[in-house]
Amino acid sequence: MAVYTEISDEDLLAFVAGYDIGEALSCKGIAEGVENSNFLLSTSTGPFILTLYEKRVNPGDLPFFLGLMDHLAVAGVPCPEPVRACDGNVLGELSGRPAAIISFLTGMWPRRIAPEHCAEVGCGLAEFHLAGENFDMTRGNDLSLSGWKELLVRSRDRADDVRAGLGDELEGELFRLETNWPDDLPKGVIHADLFPDNVFFRNGRLSGIIDFYFACNDAYAYDIAICLNAWCFESDGGFNITKARHLLGNYRKIRALSEHEMAALPLLAEGAALRFLLTRLYDWLNTPADALVTRKDPLEYLQKLRFHRRVDGPGAYGLDM
Amino acid sequence: MAVYTEISDEDLLAFVAGYDIGEALSCKGIAEGVENSNFLLSTSTGPFILTLYEKRVNPGDLPFFLGLMDHLAVAGVPCPEPVRACDGNVLGELSGRPAAIISFLTGMWPRRIAPEHCAEVGCGLAEFHLAGENFDMTRGNDLSLSGWKELLVRSRDRADDVRAGLGDELEGELFRLETNWPDDLPKGVIHADLFPDNVFFRNGRLSGIIDFYFACNDAYAYDIAICLNAWCFESDGGFNITKARHLLGNYRKIRALSEHEMAALPLLAEGAALRFLLTRLYDWLNTPADALVTRKDPLEYLQKLRFHRRVDGPGAYGLDM
Repeated sequence: MAVYTEISDEDLLAFVAGYDIGEALSCKGIAEGVENSNFLLSTSTGPFILTLYEKRVNPGDLPFFLGLMDHLAVAGVPCPEPVRACDGNVLGELSGRPAAIISFLTGMWPRRIAPEHCAEVGCGLAEFHLAGENFDMTRGNDLSLSGWKELLVRSRDRADDVRAGLGDELEGELFRLETNWPDDLPKGVIHADLFPDNVFFRNGRLSGIIDFYFACNDAYAYDIAICLNAWCFESDGGFNITKARHLLGNYRKIRALSEHEMAALPLLAEGAALRFLLTRLYDWLNTPADALVTRKDPLEYLQKLRFHRRVDGPGAYGLDM
Repeated sequence: MAVYTEISDEDLLAFVAGYDIGEALSCKGIAEGVENSNFLLSTSTGPFILTLYEKRVNPGDLPFFLGLMDHLAVAGVPCPEPVRACDGNVLGELSGRPAAIISFLTGMWPRRIAPEHCAEVGCGLAEFHLAGENFDMTRGNDLSLSGWKELLVRSRDRADDVRAGLGDELEGELFRLETNWPDDLPKGVIHADLFPDNVFFRNGRLSGIIDFYFACNDAYAYDIAICLNAWCFESDGGFNITKARHLLGNYRKIRALSEHEMAALPLLAEGAALRFLLTRLYDWLNTPADALVTRKDPLEYLQKLRFHRRVDGPGAYGLDM
C-alpha cells in the first residue's frame, strides 16, 4: 500500500477540468500499487483511477506504459485505458508529479489462489502477449541480468545480515544464470509483474490486469516464469503442480510454447525468483523502518529459487513436451 | 491513513450478499480514518463505504455511533447513513471484526482552509447539535478530564523526552482545568473530532461530515472549542481571528450561544487543546516507529494550548458578547 503525494482540492479540480469526464465529486487515496500514488476519483460520469507517478518511475518510460495500456485495451485485453485530456495528452502534471487518469476496472484480486484462477491467468497472459505483438514502442528490461548484478552489488555486503551465506549463494546463482541465460527465445512485450494483486476477477473470470509499470520487452517465457512464482506456490513454500498445469495448459491453448521455451522454463524461473529476491532484498536493507510501505520478505523468493534449481526439467511444472 | 484488516474476496462477497445493495464489483482499502479499516466498496447499485472496526473502538459503542449517524442523516445532516442488512441489522461481522456498510458521501476535505470553510463548519456544527437533541441514546465522553488524567499518568515519565519540562507543564495545566472546568453548560451530542479531514466540501459548500467514532454527550461549546483549534490556526501556529469569527458567527446564526458558553470558551479551548495534545503524546510515545500510521506532532497542540491560556476573554476569538 502506498499513498505518497497529497493532492489539494483546488489542484485536483483544476486538473480534472482539463478532461471531459464531468465534475470531480470525490478523490480518495487507495492502498494499491507500491510504486505510485493511486486515487479513486469519482466524477459525475463515474469512477476513475488517478495515478501520480513517484520518484521510482522514470518519466521517460511513461509514454511506453500509457501507450501500451491504450494499445492493449483497444485490442480487448481487460486493462485500464488512459483517458485523454481535452488537449489530447494522456500524461499531465498534478501536485508536481506526472499524472494520468485511467479507466476504473471492476473486480477484486484473489486473496486465496485456486487452480481456476491460474487457468484464467494462463489465458490472460497469452492474450496479453499476442495483443502486444503489434505495439510499436519498446522498452528494455532493466531488471534482467545486468540489473540483477547492479542490485546484488549494492546489497552484497549486508545480504548476510538477512541470512548467513545469502551473499555467496546469490553470487553463485547470478554467475550460473549469466552463463546459461538464453537469448534466442521468442520475445515481445511482457507484463513482468503479474502478481495476484495485479489481476482482478469477477465471478471467477479474469476481469482486469493492472499495474503496467514494469512492462518491457523480453522473452515471453520469462513472463510465464514470473507467474509460476507468483501464482503456483503455497504460502508454506510448497509448489502446487496442479496450479502450474492449469496456468501453462491454458496459456498454450492461446499461444503455443516451443520446445526451446519449455526447456528454458526452469532456468527462467530461477532468474525470475532471483529478480524478486534481489529487489525485495534491496528494499529490505534500504527502506526506513518507519516508512509507510510494508517490506516484503526476500527469503520467500530464496525458497522458490532453490526449488527451480533442483527441478530436472519442465515436466516438474506439469508440462507435457 | 490506515488499512489494517485484509478482506478475502470470498468473505466480502458473502457479506455483501446479506445486503440488498447489488453485486460487489470492487473493494479498495482507502487512506481515510485512523481508528478503523475503511474500504470503498463499489456495487452494481453504486459506491458505499465499508468499515471494519479495529481494536481501538469499543464494540459496545457501535450501536451509539451507527444509531447517531442514522438519526442525523434522517434529520438532514449530511452524514453517512448506515445501510441495513436484509436481517435488519446495521452491524455485522467480517474478517473477524465488527463491520458496517454506510452510504458514500461526495466531496473532498479541504487541504487549505479558507474563512469560507470555517463559516460552513460553523453552520454545520450548529445543525449537528440541534439535530442531535432528540437522539435518545447517550455516551459519556471518555476523553474529558478523567480520561486526560489517565493519559497523562501513562505518558508522564516520558513526556520530557518529547520536550523538556512538558510533563510539569501538562500537570499544572490539568490541575488548572480540573479546578475550573464548568459543568453547567448546555450539553448534548457532540462530534468531538470535527477536523478538516472529517468534513467534505463541494463547490465551497459543506457536503459531508464523517467519522463519528468520538461522538459523545458533552458541552456543545466544548465541540466548538475543538473546531477553533482544528480550523482556525495557521500551519505556522498563528491564530486566525477572521476564521474564528466566521465559524462562531455562523454557528450563532443557527444556535444561540449563551454568555456563559462564550465566557467559558477560552478554558474549553485549552481543554480541547490538552485533549489532542495528550492523545498525540500517548501515540507518539507508544506507536512503533514502523507502524503504518503517521504519528502527529503533539507539540502543535502545546502551542495552541498556550495561546488560549494567554487570551483575556472570548473577544480574542472575534466574539461580540
